[in-house]
Amino acid sequence: MNRKMVFYTTGHILILEAVLFVLPLLCSVIYRETSSVIAFAISAGIALGIGLVMSALSHTNNKLIFAKEGFAIVALAWFAVSAVGALPFVIGKFIPSYVDALFETVSGFTTTGATILSGAEIEAMSHGMLFWRSFTHWIGGMGVLVFLMAILPTDSGRAIHIMRAEVPGPIVGKIVPKIRETAKILYLIYIGMTVIMVGFLLAGKMPLFDSLVHTFGTAGTGGFGIKSDSIASYSPYLQWVITVFMLLFGINFNLYFLILVGKFTSALKSSELWCFLGIAAVSIGAIALNVSHLFSSVGETIRHSAFQVSSIISTTGFTTVDINAWPGFSKTLLLILMFIGSCAGSTAGGLKVSRVMLLVKSVKADLKKMLRPRSVNVVKLEGKPVDDGTIHSATIYLTTYFIIFLTLILFVSIDGFNIETTLSSVTSCLNNIGPAYGDAASNYAGFSGMSKILLSLAMLIGRLEIFPILLALSPATWRKK
Amino acid sequence: MNRKMVFYTTGHILILEAVLFVLPLLCSVIYRETSSVIAFAISAGIALGIGLVMSALSHTNNKLIFAKEGFAIVALAWFAVSAVGALPFVIGKFIPSYVDALFETVSGFTTTGATILSGAEIEAMSHGMLFWRSFTHWIGGMGVLVFLMAILPTDSGRAIHIMRAEVPGPIVGKIVPKIRETAKILYLIYIGMTVIMVGFLLAGKMPLFDSLVHTFGTAGTGGFGIKSDSIASYSPYLQWVITVFMLLFGINFNLYFLILVGKFTSALKSSELWCFLGIAAVSIGAIALNVSHLFSSVGETIRHSAFQVSSIISTTGFTTVDINAWPGFSKTLLLILMFIGSCAGSTAGGLKVSRVMLLVKSVKADLKKMLRPRSVNVVKLEGKPVDDGTIHSATIYLTTYFIIFLTLILFVSIDGFNIETTLSSVTSCLNNIGPAYGDAASNYAGFSGMSKILLSLAMLIGRLEIFPILLALSPATWRKK
Repeated sequence: MNRKMVFYTTGHILILEAVLFVLPLLCSVIYRETSSVIAFAISAGIALGIGLVMSALSHTNNKLIFAKEGFAIVALAWFAVSAVGALPFVIGKFIPSYVDALFETVSGFTTTGATILSGAEIEAMSHGMLFWRSFTHWIGGMGVLVFLMAILPTDSGRAIHIMRAEVPGPIVGKIVPKIRETAKILYLIYIGMTVIMVGFLLAGKMPLFDSLVHTFGTAGTGGFGIKSDSIASYSPYLQWVITVFMLLFGINFNLYFLILVGKFTSALKSSELWCFLGIAAVSIGAIALNVSHLFSSVGETIRHSAFQVSSIISTTGFTTVDINAWPGFSKTLLLILMFIGSCAGSTAGGLKVSRVMLLVKSVKADLKKMLRPRSVNVVKLEGKPVDDGTIHSATIYLTTYFIIFLTLILFVSIDGFNIETTLSSVTSCLNNIGPAYGDAASNYAGFSGMSKILLSLAMLIGRLEIFPILLALSPATWRKK
Repeated sequence: MNRKMVFYTTGHILILEAVLFVLPLLCSVIYRETSSVIAFAISAGIALGIGLVMSALSHTNNKLIFAKEGFAIVALAWFAVSAVGALPFVIGKFIPSYVDALFETVSGFTTTGATILSGAEIEAMSHGMLFWRSFTHWIGGMGVLVFLMAILPTDSGRAIHIMRAEVPGPIVGKIVPKIRETAKILYLIYIGMTVIMVGFLLAGKMPLFDSLVHTFGTAGTGGFGIKSDSIASYSPYLQWVITVFMLLFGINFNLYFLILVGKFTSALKSSELWCFLGIAAVSIGAIALNVSHLFSSVGETIRHSAFQVSSIISTTGFTTVDINAWPGFSKTLLLILMFIGSCAGSTAGGLKVSRVMLLVKSVKADLKKMLRPRSVNVVKLEGKPVDDGTIHSATIYLTTYFIIFLTLILFVSIDGFNIETTLSSVTSCLNNIGPAYGDAASNYAGFSGMSKILLSLAMLIGRLEIFPILLALSPATWRKK
């Protein structure tokens, strides 16, 4: 294990975070929020200090890293940005408990959007704090290490291990041969779509500040809002804009690249895309039928059904209605959508549509094999045959996911909430959605410190697709030889 | 597909069922329950008639069967015995709705023990009906086809396919080289343990009728009781006897065979056995701590904790307390135990301890491989290396299980019950336990006909380990060529 490279890279990430603190700091300067300005300045100082010392102490000429180091770097970097990212909330006294602030920050970076704040507490926050809270979504969406790779010169041979560990999906593909170029292109598309969305929101007369934070929350598929009723009080036009963009940010970014280079037909051939949109469309229809009695018109029914489905399947978590009060079928369908999530290579969480497709196809192939033991059944994804190793990885992924899921539910249930509360909060955090049912319907403040830490871990496990966190928690990973 | 052999064997199973109807008929004769006597006589006549016609019409000299036919025979035979087994309840007017009677009978044969009857309705039943209801557990526990194989001469080469499809567990082993001998030995051990248990219950002054039906429910790990409060009103001694026997019937029967032939040390070497007992012991301890405030003494706390844990992990489903009123942690832990179940090769349901061990070990091996890509990690079970095909089967099994689980939850949720009710009832039926939480805490009467059919299907899927039912529902299975 090349521990020096792990700490060296993590140091760089903290220096980057110090720079990122400047944005909410400026926001607080504009709104003349003195205590917040001070909180961000101190936090930036701490991030810079730790980052510089870490990098300096672990300077090494051996820059070789392999899969193991890739996992460790990603895990440690995410722990570090969360631990330091929580500081402004505590220093600014907006979230006095560090565990609560950490939960909120992990929820931000992992693009979960689960909050320990009440509606009143959110509305009482300074603009700078709200900006930082939503900005963590935007940073975490595409990945902090991918960002670092996009701006710093990196050796492709090394970077692929980091990319594999941070970018979600069963198969990680490079858009262009060079990792750094790939990272850059991804971020350019991301920034471009962010700017377009802000434009659409401004056109609907949403104030600039609101437009920015809601775009951060949508782009990262996070879901932190700035109002006690999330998106409910905005106009139908604005709700539709957010609905469409939540879906757009749930699509594999490789497809946008294909469109940019003129390969429309290749992009539209993606079976994952159509499966994703198909699941969304069928779910919207089914839920609209189930909740139609709650609304006065068909238009309103469809708008709210489409918003909630897009929000959950894209793992964003904004709401326009109280879904906890919806009938059992709609609540159950939304819970199942939480597990599926969106496309691989997007900013969304969940198991990912392509992985679900792969699993379903593997089951089908095995059923065929049972009927005709001598037949050859090749599983194909996006027209290409999938090798046994990839199928094995996908099934082991689901197995590990299931074990972790049940373990988390068991330990969170010690708090004594009912099964609906425990189950939905673990599902929501593990798949990076945000909202839950029952006693966690408004927020996660009622959980014990122990459960908040476990749920934070669940969010990290979900965002980084299990293995980096699991390996980072195993002492064997950190042994020198 | 050798369809004739499928129908021929199913015909034989129905003739066997006609013979089995004689036992509850005699019971009703003893208790002078005229209408029940008539109901069983008519049902036996129908079973015999259909069975004889089916066997005669599908007589064939081509007795060749393969895996495909094995699945089809098991699925069709179980559908048939359930469909005909429900008749006495309807004819005797104890359960007027056929769908309800079918649910109750499937629940019996699959050793689930989920009921659509209220406590008062159960206590109002005739002795003959209660005997039949519990006797279905005893028949289904070891398997109807295994029973047929034990009493009829069968060709080993063919029978192994049927045995594989009906006996649960990731790896099916023959005790002795000949299938028919294996089936006989299994049934002899089963009958022996049944007799011993009846003796222990009689020694505790339980009436003979009660002793018989409760032993049937325990031996098959079923759980149908004859009182509105299940086992609560029996003495602590009787509750402990049932606790111990529920665990004993959750152990792989191969171990009892080893003990019978004097190989004690081989039997005690079974890691599945110790894992099973370990999970049970830890769960009893954890639940005892969680519910201690509900009981007046330590002895009472441990007795009820041990009873409920043994009942759930053995997938029996008897109760001595209202578990729906227990705290969240205990309810969640019991729900998780439902998924695990007992040992392979026992009469119990669930995923089976050995399959769970195999899955956990596979995940561990893969994690090691991620750290050291060139290392060789052999997964071992019971000291023997497990090949990749078996691991693949186990992970695909879990995947299929997960897909079916979510699909069932979605469709059952259309009834509009809360998530706790829907989730626990599907979990309980799919793993052949019986009791559920929320609105299904006392019984399943509140579900719609559609949900009752889906839950019946879930019980069959669980008992036969998914694939026979799934393949039987696919038209491709039934094609001639």
